[in-house]
Amino acid sequence: MEDYINELKEFLKIPSISTLPEYKNEIEHCAKFVAENLEKIGMSRVEIFKTEGHPVVYSEWLGAPGKPTVLVYGHYDVQPVDPVELWNSPPFEPVIKEGKIFARGATDDKGQLFVHLKSVEAFFKTEGSLPLNIKFLIEGEEEIASESLRVFLKNNTDLLKCDAVLVSDTSLYAAGVPTLTYGLRGLSYFEVEMEGPNRDLHSGSFGGSVANPINILSDVISKLHDKNGRITIPGFYDDVLKLSKKERENFKVLKFSEKEYAKDLGVSELSGEKGFTTLERIWARPTLDCNGIIGGFTGIGAKTIIPSKVTAKISMRLVPSQNSVKIAKQFARYVKKLAPKSVKIKVTELHSGQPGITPIENPANVAAAKAMEKAFGKKTIFVREGGSIPIVTDFSKRLKSPVVLMGLGLDSENLHSPNEHFDLKHFQLGIISSAYFIKEYSEKS
Amino acid sequence: MEDYINELKEFLKIPSISTLPEYKNEIEHCAKFVAENLEKIGMSRVEIFKTEGHPVVYSEWLGAPGKPTVLVYGHYDVQPVDPVELWNSPPFEPVIKEGKIFARGATDDKGQLFVHLKSVEAFFKTEGSLPLNIKFLIEGEEEIASESLRVFLKNNTDLLKCDAVLVSDTSLYAAGVPTLTYGLRGLSYFEVEMEGPNRDLHSGSFGGSVANPINILSDVISKLHDKNGRITIPGFYDDVLKLSKKERENFKVLKFSEKEYAKDLGVSELSGEKGFTTLERIWARPTLDCNGIIGGFTGIGAKTIIPSKVTAKISMRLVPSQNSVKIAKQFARYVKKLAPKSVKIKVTELHSGQPGITPIENPANVAAAKAMEKAFGKKTIFVREGGSIPIVTDFSKRLKSPVVLMGLGLDSENLHSPNEHFDLKHFQLGIISSAYFIKEYSEKS
Repeated sequence: MEDYINELKEFLKIPSISTLPEYKNEIEHCAKFVAENLEKIGMSRVEIFKTEGHPVVYSEWLGAPGKPTVLVYGHYDVQPVDPVELWNSPPFEPVIKEGKIFARGATDDKGQLFVHLKSVEAFFKTEGSLPLNIKFLIEGEEEIASESLRVFLKNNTDLLKCDAVLVSDTSLYAAGVPTLTYGLRGLSYFEVEMEGPNRDLHSGSFGGSVANPINILSDVISKLHDKNGRITIPGFYDDVLKLSKKERENFKVLKFSEKEYAKDLGVSELSGEKGFTTLERIWARPTLDCNGIIGGFTGIGAKTIIPSKVTAKISMRLVPSQNSVKIAKQFARYVKKLAPKSVKIKVTELHSGQPGITPIENPANVAAAKAMEKAFGKKTIFVREGGSIPIVTDFSKRLKSPVVLMGLGLDSENLHSPNEHFDLKHFQLGIISSAYFIKEYSEKS
Repeated sequence: MEDYINELKEFLKIPSISTLPEYKNEIEHCAKFVAENLEKIGMSRVEIFKTEGHPVVYSEWLGAPGKPTVLVYGHYDVQPVDPVELWNSPPFEPVIKEGKIFARGATDDKGQLFVHLKSVEAFFKTEGSLPLNIKFLIEGEEEIASESLRVFLKNNTDLLKCDAVLVSDTSLYAAGVPTLTYGLRGLSYFEVEMEGPNRDLHSGSFGGSVANPINILSDVISKLHDKNGRITIPGFYDDVLKLSKKERENFKVLKFSEKEYAKDLGVSELSGEKGFTTLERIWARPTLDCNGIIGGFTGIGAKTIIPSKVTAKISMRLVPSQNSVKIAKQFARYVKKLAPKSVKIKVTELHSGQPGITPIENPANVAAAKAMEKAFGKKTIFVREGGSIPIVTDFSKRLKSPVVLMGLGLDSENLHSPNEHFDLKHFQLGIISSAYFIKEYSEKS
């Protein structure tokens, strides 16, 4: 462990900030560090692929013919460090305090990624080989939207072919609690523009003669939910996978205080679709939110106009097995139908992403659960995630493989903030989990 | 008439722009011009009152004891001339073209105001006296909200005591059509702020757990109207004066093309409260409009947040005999009631004004209608105005006198715009109308 931690420190010293052009050399330096480490641990092929952006590191060891192939994904790039004055120690000079290693990238994602290199190293050192085939795909643009990786994925589906993808870039539900994330929500994001009169009108001289686009858009937005908090778009729920009894029980036993959650957000009560708990609503039910709205007079004081235009951003979080393409069509059609003839409406899709799920029963998840249980000494829990991880969707789409999200970080570890850190206990348990996973998954039928 | 027009030209040459400090001398020069003209025409008392702002010119002739007293109101100040390059002739060098006099202030309000000085002059010249008592109140701050006049009114109610106020600062319904405006709408203007969570939240991680203030405010706004376009605030219509059969007939016979009106505004259909015509809705029915709204992410592209806050400006146009104080209370109470516990709401009144009406049957309106009919040779029509004229409300409140709005301008005469002008035919018919009014009203029982 001491050696592993010292190596991790070297990895963390490299300021591989992907979004700042002045760190381009450091990014390349970091890709090289990863490649060299992969060679050192005993991988048979290591290659740095140039891209339009930052390099992708690919590596493989395919010495177990007939056995499954696992693709480990991770990223070596990190977020910027601002505001640097809030750091208790320099972001690229790793420091260990109370069993935690502090540095930019410690939990996101260098520490979590390194877990899998070290478990492979341990296998080679102790057994001389792996019981399955392994590939590494480590990119340098995760914090800036993975554009080059997306192209690489598309152009190298044969190279990357595998039976399962293993990713450690999410969180444990709580410290010491082995956790697998098996569902992600998707997204369908729109801009809706409504135009009433062709110019702002005096609300005295014209009030009562024409439809007011803000009032009308408010009415349309209001109609998107019914009184039970359900979304009213026809067909919207058709493809929603119902939560199984087992899933609902899984969620129910998790420690979750509605009271503290509400207090932290400063609201006097939580709110959402009737008939579901808060965790169910966040993780496994689709939602619709206005993300922004602007129209008419928004300065200080009173200006008596009927505005010509108003624009709202409206997005939906989708759940398995909703299809973002189908939902986008349903949304656009419905919103246009809700708008009366007295206004013009323009509905523009800005962004979308498919929801994703790797069923709890999938052999890769079963193996991962067993592995973590052995390492942590506790039963693994299965959670979902309300947000999206776009690259996961790309893996599902391009490689048609199940994705195991073996997160080892904690939400409290300041990822993207000053004083980012990673619990070294989880680093160690992660390495053991990774090793058990390789063993467990090699035995899948 | 030639003399009168030449005098009007001198009046129009003075650049009495009230909003620009560098024109202070011109403003005083203009007040003096008005005072001198009032002396010249034979008024017995003329006084220029200093104020905190621009001077008020007061004048009286009270030589008809036992007869009614009419207070003529008008303003000698004008709007700025920008963009001056769009004027076809210099704004303060009056030019007559095709029977119209072009200059800043021609129709708003020097030309219209001058009408009454000239009718009084004609009386004195031909009959040596007036058949009633007359007072003039001519201010220099109408274009900048009449603040000083408001103070003057409050402190001089005895001096200004009268049986009717006569104002020419509105418009004829159409060229050559004698028109009296007998009703004005009032205003109740609010800002409504809604807060959900205490910070913007990631819509993936939190979507489904908390109320979204934009969605909630949209819902509240939506509920302010029913499906027939009626406002749902309890008690809102209690004090609304119903349109009489006669009033509705008066409006119905007016030339008004819904099609052209809609075309000009660029809308495919007009819209509003069911059961009323467009003119009825604008002039005599209360309305509620969102004047502006802003909240959450309003930049370019997609940002997936649940916003913490949203703010809307919402105002109501009120009609006689609604009371803006009562309506404000009803609105605030109702909006707060509509908001669920899951959000915080703040309702702030920004502005208000009472609606006003001088019934068609009021002797002052009856006399004015007869006078205009004689002058124009056509039946006088009675219209209302959807906007407010704040100073009219002040006259009603302070002097408790009916206000006759004998407008002589046209909406097409570019008031506040380049190439302002006034139809000299209306100038002449106005003088005759004013003289007939003095005669008719002197005979009221």
